[in-house]
Amino acid sequence: MENFVFQNKTKIIFGRDTENQVGEEVKAHSSKVLLHYGAASIKKSGLYDKVAASLKKSGVEFVELSGVLPNPRLSLVKEGIELCRKNDIGFILAVGGGSVIDSAKAIAAGVPYNGDVWDFYTGKGQPTEALPVATVLTIPAAGSEASPSSVITNTDGDLKRGLTNDLLRPVFSILNPELTFTLPNYQTACGAADIMAHIMERYFTTTECADFTDRLCEATMKAIIHNIPTCIKENKNYEARAEVMWAGCVAHNDLLGTGRNQDWASHGIEHEISGIYDVAHGAGLAVVFPAWMKFVYKSNINRFVQFASRVWNAEIDFHNQEKTALAGIAALENFFVSIGLPVRLKDMDIKDDRLAEMADKATGNGSWTMGGFVSLDRNAVLEILKLAL
Amino acid sequence: MENFVFQNKTKIIFGRDTENQVGEEVKAHSSKVLLHYGAASIKKSGLYDKVAASLKKSGVEFVELSGVLPNPRLSLVKEGIELCRKNDIGFILAVGGGSVIDSAKAIAAGVPYNGDVWDFYTGKGQPTEALPVATVLTIPAAGSEASPSSVITNTDGDLKRGLTNDLLRPVFSILNPELTFTLPNYQTACGAADIMAHIMERYFTTTECADFTDRLCEATMKAIIHNIPTCIKENKNYEARAEVMWAGCVAHNDLLGTGRNQDWASHGIEHEISGIYDVAHGAGLAVVFPAWMKFVYKSNINRFVQFASRVWNAEIDFHNQEKTALAGIAALENFFVSIGLPVRLKDMDIKDDRLAEMADKATGNGSWTMGGFVSLDRNAVLEILKLAL
Repeated sequence: MENFVFQNKTKIIFGRDTENQVGEEVKAHSSKVLLHYGAASIKKSGLYDKVAASLKKSGVEFVELSGVLPNPRLSLVKEGIELCRKNDIGFILAVGGGSVIDSAKAIAAGVPYNGDVWDFYTGKGQPTEALPVATVLTIPAAGSEASPSSVITNTDGDLKRGLTNDLLRPVFSILNPELTFTLPNYQTACGAADIMAHIMERYFTTTECADFTDRLCEATMKAIIHNIPTCIKENKNYEARAEVMWAGCVAHNDLLGTGRNQDWASHGIEHEISGIYDVAHGAGLAVVFPAWMKFVYKSNINRFVQFASRVWNAEIDFHNQEKTALAGIAALENFFVSIGLPVRLKDMDIKDDRLAEMADKATGNGSWTMGGFVSLDRNAVLEILKLAL
Repeated sequence: MENFVFQNKTKIIFGRDTENQVGEEVKAHSSKVLLHYGAASIKKSGLYDKVAASLKKSGVEFVELSGVLPNPRLSLVKEGIELCRKNDIGFILAVGGGSVIDSAKAIAAGVPYNGDVWDFYTGKGQPTEALPVATVLTIPAAGSEASPSSVITNTDGDLKRGLTNDLLRPVFSILNPELTFTLPNYQTACGAADIMAHIMERYFTTTECADFTDRLCEATMKAIIHNIPTCIKENKNYEARAEVMWAGCVAHNDLLGTGRNQDWASHGIEHEISGIYDVAHGAGLAVVFPAWMKFVYKSNINRFVQFASRVWNAEIDFHNQEKTALAGIAALENFFVSIGLPVRLKDMDIKDDRLAEMADKATGNGSWTMGGFVSLDRNAVLEILKLAL
């Protein structure tokens, strides 16, 4: 096990009707907030009205900024920063999924910063302060509700980049599984792929001894695999929705990665795909992860056998461990297919004409490598993209 | 799943040599602290010198209070409260195991309180403020390093009582597995029983749907079962010690109990045993838990079958599920025996002469019941104690 520091201060308020507590919770921090959200869906579902009523009841004033898109844009972030400055706002409430929360975090980091907030996403600097952010979550997927991460897309160059800083962890997040009843099945499935990827990026490690967190990762993956089909068949099954929502949060709150080297190459490669093609992040991951696995599994057959056996209940072929390893990868792919996800670039109508461009961007034109489980250079990334075709 | 709120702010600093960071970490909170510890063991191991050196290097002044015993005494807590008041101390650093940490928490709650700190342990009041506490952990067992709980023994009446309040969660805890290399095997085993009990008190629930946390509980139990024998055979095996230390912390940091009804009757019954006989808490739990299981398993055979199958890899007898349930209980008992723990009161030289007194104390002379999985009245507690003979 590697040395580590783990601290997650986010207060999770979980369960039925908890969105009605939002005013009271915000009030403990601020009496004037930016209410940040996407588009029509929270108005249609009635969530907007509930949140607004709760804020008003608690005497919290709010300024609104809507229009967050999937793969949230830098341009709206900059608008949010100006809005906060103009209205002297010191707290941001994100109501939505990972895109809304990531956008809120970017605004939070940008408001007290004199330079261009994009600096934080290109590695030119780290925030030293940020406004507090809180969330009412509507999509279990990104784990942004308890993570220190934010991913933003700069359409000028089709660049999608991430920032991780503990200042960005939400002070509280409200998770009501009922709010996910109306998610389209495709979005539920994309969320599942994102959650699985967050766990697998941690699970595939070069750290030799990480027994406890291995088991926690396996437990969390099994909870997702077990409950997602029910969410898709019975959209309003509270219990299955609740399991997925809580597992999706823990999957990315950093506990599962404690004491382990991690990978994150698949996320990086996927960001190049959705940066250009604007596909759902989860769908992109469902395509990239199996391809990545096929490229790297020989570097540690044992770990892939453990994945096959413990996560997918594959019978171990003791005469041919490679066969077992491949059975695990196939099981993952079958799972993604079974819940309606693409597993090849062609399933998303993406052809081979920009693969080299993506490999270049992912590795700074070959100036750096990516991944902790196997170190990938530009050519390796290109090979993985080809395997994903 | 039940509605819940989960927040754990404790900063965990985990790994080799991390005790040398203690001065720096304390300094961020206070420049004058109470250094609270047990007896000779931390001086013999050299830990005392390292902690003292680190505090001095960071310019942190400290006043000492040693002498904490297993089943920590109210009398020393009161001494600590006076010492803090006299020296105007606003921060407590506990160096030791659960007893030292629990004693530190009691002092922390007592210093700003005008009344008798024992009031908090008898339910006469709840603290509204407390000094911050931090820990350098030497025994994986109680989980007090990230929990909001403290258990204190009042020798006036042989009473052992607990207090749970979020104000008591340590601000940081330093966990270096190397510090556990010198633990006697019996103490390692007692710690394992305590950790297993913390998980099982949460695992045996009446909440029907708690799939994700079921799996997390099972993962954590399996990590303990898998790694404790190695700790006992190879006292200085860093990896096994690390797995147990981290699993023991997560076992009681409240994550595993989120969204579930819990039980805690076995802990309550054990407190009556160690309150009178001053046996190790973990040893008492190794005796009480199997007896409790034998008394309650028929109320939910399925849950005990799941425990047998998933935690102990018992083959399910589909014609006789009760047999499978009992196999799980037997496996737990065998595990405790295999690591050198008592599993009957007689193994600890406790006879049947004070069973009724314990049942009376545990239930306020029959005025309340205990336990969430099965509600136990005074006679039920007495039956369990008889099963433990």
